[in-house]
Amino acid sequence: MTYCVGMILDKGLVLMSDTRTNSGVDNISVFRKMYRWSVPGERVIALMTAGNLATTQAVVSKLQERTKAPAERQNSLLELPTMFQAATEIGKLLRETVQQTQAANGQEASGRFTASMILAGQIAGMEPRLFMIYPEGNFIEASFDTPFFQIGETKYGRPILIRGYDRDMSFEDAVKLMMVSFDSTLKANLSVGLPLDTLVLERDNFEPVHERRIEHDDPYFVSISNSWSNALRNAFHSLPDYSFSSTRD
Amino acid sequence: MTYCVGMILDKGLVLMSDTRTNSGVDNISVFRKMYRWSVPGERVIALMTAGNLATTQAVVSKLQERTKAPAERQNSLLELPTMFQAATEIGKLLRETVQQTQAANGQEASGRFTASMILAGQIAGMEPRLFMIYPEGNFIEASFDTPFFQIGETKYGRPILIRGYDRDMSFEDAVKLMMVSFDSTLKANLSVGLPLDTLVLERDNFEPVHERRIEHDDPYFVSISNSWSNALRNAFHSLPDYSFSSTRD
Repeated sequence: MTYCVGMILDKGLVLMSDTRTNSGVDNISVFRKMYRWSVPGERVIALMTAGNLATTQAVVSKLQERTKAPAERQNSLLELPTMFQAATEIGKLLRETVQQTQAANGQEASGRFTASMILAGQIAGMEPRLFMIYPEGNFIEASFDTPFFQIGETKYGRPILIRGYDRDMSFEDAVKLMMVSFDSTLKANLSVGLPLDTLVLERDNFEPVHERRIEHDDPYFVSISNSWSNALRNAFHSLPDYSFSSTRD
Repeated sequence: MTYCVGMILDKGLVLMSDTRTNSGVDNISVFRKMYRWSVPGERVIALMTAGNLATTQAVVSKLQERTKAPAERQNSLLELPTMFQAATEIGKLLRETVQQTQAANGQEASGRFTASMILAGQIAGMEPRLFMIYPEGNFIEASFDTPFFQIGETKYGRPILIRGYDRDMSFEDAVKLMMVSFDSTLKANLSVGLPLDTLVLERDNFEPVHERRIEHDDPYFVSISNSWSNALRNAFHSLPDYSFSSTRD
């Protein structure tokens, strides 16, 4: 499994992904699921992936090759004119990769090689944008009505995102919120694991303002994880008390 | 979908279930998923169900018939000597019901008619016990290492249960904790819905100390739902702040 979150704020975009992959509980590895391309001063584009690792690595390798092989540069993430076209191009690559693997493996492969992706970024002169790309190649875009996307093991960490999100929150608070969401997920699902990758893209700043790998022994993450239990317990006790008698009325 | 939680405390057992069933998003109904049998002063047994409604209703109807038809009373929940035998008997009925429906509907019915159940109760002279019963008829029992079971849409409401549970908490706090867990689930999954049924079984008291349906307009539930957002937000802000610079060290 996997857990990735992409969020859009007034100030820009915040992304976080885990790094655990597993093929059975006795075959776990660390793989990066967050990728970034940038042209300083002009664009920064990030991609997070969930699903079949062979599929997602193939898609990312094809995207990387295009940025390096001049002959194919017309479809490179470094040159496509809009984020919408980048989403279209990645969706097409993803669909083709899934379909080719499935076609080569017959009927019973159906669904086994799928993947989904979150694409985030900004190109100079345009707004920061956030997309979720499905295995079928189609995609949806976030707005302030639905300001974040999750892929992978999404459920455990969702309630705190729903309650904690605020479009004018600071980047630091958004990273903190995601850490709480990841902590809840890590505690519940063994197939999501540290380290975590974090990326913060400020609006109209075409270099990441923050990019960091959070390791197992990261003191801040450890302190969040420890203090969240107490904070939640205090929050719980601050709620009005239930009473068997009064609520019977 | 469905959401039910059964929890074991030092003081006894606490159960909560939602009442929404759906067959497609345009066909939703209210059905009770919590059932109770008791012999005053001697035993109280409760059952919560998730899964195919025809299956769960058939199992419950068979259990009800046995408590009424004297000829079959040897397997009645009112007469079985232990909670373990009650779990065995319900597991057997559940497996038979699932298998019969699937056999009558051929290969493609596989998995469509399954259900799971949570059984809780106490018989005089023995401990309160809590079981989770699978569609295959086998079951597991809760202990203070794993003191609660969830069935149905379990993920959204799980983190708060993990963090908030305490074996020596009061019944009132346990009901409050479950309400928070249900509120998170209700906010995330439309197929879980109010009203909620609540049942509190005190150790060695063979009558429920509290049994109530929580309706949409229940003032306490509404206040929990409203104040939990603020409480969570305060909890979140009470955590140490993240800083781009210091954490780079």
